[in-house]
Amino acid sequence: MRVGYIGLGLMGKAIAGNILKGGFPLTVHNRSKGAVEELAGRGARRADSPAQVAAESEVVFTNLPDTPDVEQVVLGPAGIIEGGRPGLIVVDNSTIRPEAARAIAARLADKEMAFLDAPVSGGDVGAREGTLTIMVGGDGEAVETVRPVFAAIGKSLTYVGASGAGQVAKACNQIMVAAQMVAMGELLLLAQKAGVDPQRVIEAIRGGAAQCWTLDVKPARLFRGERGPGFKAHMMDKDLRIVLDTARAYGMPLPSAAIHAQLFAAMLEMGMRDLDNSAVIGVLEQMAGVELTVPR
Amino acid sequence: MRVGYIGLGLMGKAIAGNILKGGFPLTVHNRSKGAVEELAGRGARRADSPAQVAAESEVVFTNLPDTPDVEQVVLGPAGIIEGGRPGLIVVDNSTIRPEAARAIAARLADKEMAFLDAPVSGGDVGAREGTLTIMVGGDGEAVETVRPVFAAIGKSLTYVGASGAGQVAKACNQIMVAAQMVAMGELLLLAQKAGVDPQRVIEAIRGGAAQCWTLDVKPARLFRGERGPGFKAHMMDKDLRIVLDTARAYGMPLPSAAIHAQLFAAMLEMGMRDLDNSAVIGVLEQMAGVELTVPR
Repeated sequence: MRVGYIGLGLMGKAIAGNILKGGFPLTVHNRSKGAVEELAGRGARRADSPAQVAAESEVVFTNLPDTPDVEQVVLGPAGIIEGGRPGLIVVDNSTIRPEAARAIAARLADKEMAFLDAPVSGGDVGAREGTLTIMVGGDGEAVETVRPVFAAIGKSLTYVGASGAGQVAKACNQIMVAAQMVAMGELLLLAQKAGVDPQRVIEAIRGGAAQCWTLDVKPARLFRGERGPGFKAHMMDKDLRIVLDTARAYGMPLPSAAIHAQLFAAMLEMGMRDLDNSAVIGVLEQMAGVELTVPR
Repeated sequence: MRVGYIGLGLMGKAIAGNILKGGFPLTVHNRSKGAVEELAGRGARRADSPAQVAAESEVVFTNLPDTPDVEQVVLGPAGIIEGGRPGLIVVDNSTIRPEAARAIAARLADKEMAFLDAPVSGGDVGAREGTLTIMVGGDGEAVETVRPVFAAIGKSLTYVGASGAGQVAKACNQIMVAAQMVAMGELLLLAQKAGVDPQRVIEAIRGGAAQCWTLDVKPARLFRGERGPGFKAHMMDKDLRIVLDTARAYGMPLPSAAIHAQLFAAMLEMGMRDLDNSAVIGVLEQMAGVELTVPR
């Protein structure tokens, strides 16, 4: 199966690398050329446009920052829709609005092309190690066709339902992730302010009812003073805007997610847009007038 | 080591049972007599007052609803302090205010008795199965003395620090647990309102960055229509009041935990005080005008 990958950011480049490693012939395209050259050095073909990628592929993946980027690359001038033949399957690893995913799928269906919304979770580590969680919406037969490629990039694939369902699952995922990130920040600073060693607190609680991937992975990084991504704050901010837009569209009040969206928005205003999402503790540090102590 | 246990509620009775199973001679006391008779039938001695339990024991555990109950049972008339000899170790499994734990410890220290704050996490299941997470504050030597008993009731014991540190850790634990419970409710209802099967969404996200004990355990119960405890909403409400009181005392704003405290307070007002903490989804159901569909 000839595969294309468009959008070679932190996540996209790592995923594309695993597709190559899986033995699939790969054509890549990216606005900035560094990542293209890196993958070309490992055997990928270069393409000048999304249309060219589509012309050379049976399955084309996209991994782009936001909804308008995906619309542009798939449906815009020199986009996938211009180069693809009937039967092409487009797989979008981006996190975008579920309704936008449904609309793109409908436009591609007019040309007999399939569109799968297939956002991922598991961060940069999961992308590099090929252990992502993939949540897929769209045509079930197309999912089966692409399954061998999914197997090269993720450890778990869940078919959630019709077009858009993968994006709804991702929005749900981000509700939980944001909640955990903020709660982690609150509890670390409360412990410190109360005169208790935050590291001991994490050790005490991470095996009980509070157990989560966030507490398993992130505190150790914060205690080393590491706040770089990982998963960038401005991406979390964008995802939470999708969450709240989607919730409004379907009439679902989200009192807790709304607060978390505000805290991530504050994070961006405070100049922390390129830090990891766990660095939302920085907003709480400002509110509390204290910094998390980094042990020597 | 002769052990006493005072307060045989859902958690206390299960923990006391595991102390018996561990082979320790046990004296018990409780306001209502059903649980006392049950444990007496398994070999425990009955005592008429906390003072009598203390007189017959080297280590006395308490497990009571709230701060004033612990103060009363330890320091009040016919309390532990009246019956205990110097060298007695009092271990409190309740969740109470950290400052109250420190004050009780100081009062007992005047009588040469030790006080360990040793709240637990892991729910009724953990209590029954002896797999609780125990977080301990107080004198380190006393912790070592009690360690064999702790080993009978929990799978992990973390010494967090001086008196009160165990309660601070528990407050931190409840910040995370409340966040996960509310986020779970929000995401399940968002999925349903957006026309996506909430069970598939849980399957899709539980292995990724959203992974947590809450998502591992609670959705299956909600999908079976089970909202009983578990861990009662009014206990969560009480714990979150401790969290916010402690945060205020130490000057730590908790914007997210504060919202969760409000939602659990609403849960009580809506007549759901004796349901499980996961049933906080019921508050969101009312806000959204929809009920989580229970699959046939």
